[in-house]
Amino acid sequence: MAHITLQNDALPGITGLMDFRPETAGPLNALAEVLLRGPSTLTSGEREIIASSVSWWNNCHFCHSSHGAAAAAHLGRGPAFIDAIKAGLPDEPLSPKMRALLVVARHVQEGGLKVTDADVAAARAAGATDVEIHDTVLIAAAFCMYNRYVDGLATWRPEPKEAYMAIGERLAHQGYMAPVMG
Amino acid sequence: MAHITLQNDALPGITGLMDFRPETAGPLNALAEVLLRGPSTLTSGEREIIASSVSWWNNCHFCHSSHGAAAAAHLGRGPAFIDAIKAGLPDEPLSPKMRALLVVARHVQEGGLKVTDADVAAARAAGATDVEIHDTVLIAAAFCMYNRYVDGLATWRPEPKEAYMAIGERLAHQGYMAPVMG
Repeated sequence: MAHITLQNDALPGITGLMDFRPETAGPLNALAEVLLRGPSTLTSGEREIIASSVSWWNNCHFCHSSHGAAAAAHLGRGPAFIDAIKAGLPDEPLSPKMRALLVVARHVQEGGLKVTDADVAAARAAGATDVEIHDTVLIAAAFCMYNRYVDGLATWRPEPKEAYMAIGERLAHQGYMAPVMG
Repeated sequence: MAHITLQNDALPGITGLMDFRPETAGPLNALAEVLLRGPSTLTSGEREIIASSVSWWNNCHFCHSSHGAAAAAHLGRGPAFIDAIKAGLPDEPLSPKMRALLVVARHVQEGGLKVTDADVAAARAAGATDVEIHDTVLIAAAFCMYNRYVDGLATWRPEPKEAYMAIGERLAHQGYMAPVMG
């Protein structure tokens, strides 16, 4: 049971919180929309992989699963892709640039001061631009917020990964500004 | 030197990043404005204390100092108030509710799953409402983002706390949506 009384118990994870406090939902959704679906030289699939990976490292089941499902939707994959993200995508044809950006994201998750010059130099050597490095850091930082928000208030969430595939389709194709029906 | 090339080296901390990427600056500023200055039964001074405390626990000098200075500006205090926040405000007449909410914030900073039923029950027993508990969790979570953003990109910042007093006055009285001059 959530730590606070939410009006709509049918809405899982962050969606119940956004229904509870629309004043903060606006900027939170706008940030996710620009970071994950706005114009970028990183694909939305790549950006959702970063979001899902950070959420996994933060042990946030709802965010990890829903953004893993969004990545799967962008890439035309099934629920097993969520497990692949947990494992670090060892068998996926991820670009060297994406692998280097995931190292940057991992260090952001541990703490801003953990990101080293060497991490950034490796990303740059693999072809990452300043904007891609910026966006990777901000996506990772933002999910350190979303994850703490969702779990800090002990929100309800489905357990099986299959339950997230419809959420992933919606996030991938309708985005973060579309109204959520409870 | 920052990890990426910012167009305006005179802008410290998050301000240089917002100048670099206005697409994300919009929602980031809107979120800070509603969380720290929007309508609330917590005063802006109390909310800035939560923001500054979380930033201190995350070892983010720029955010800790600027939001500590904003708290000081709201409360009519000097630079020593920034040191008082670092020390946990032992000699300040903080309400029992605020002390309980700072425990919630501390646990959010450590990780969303660290917030316990007992933390929330103690805040409620001290008079905190559901919205106040919600906002405390989201302020703490949001500063886990802002702090990682600022330090993950190794932005420049002034060292002495006195250098933050003008920033604090601006944040307190003009807010987070006002344009920043470099």
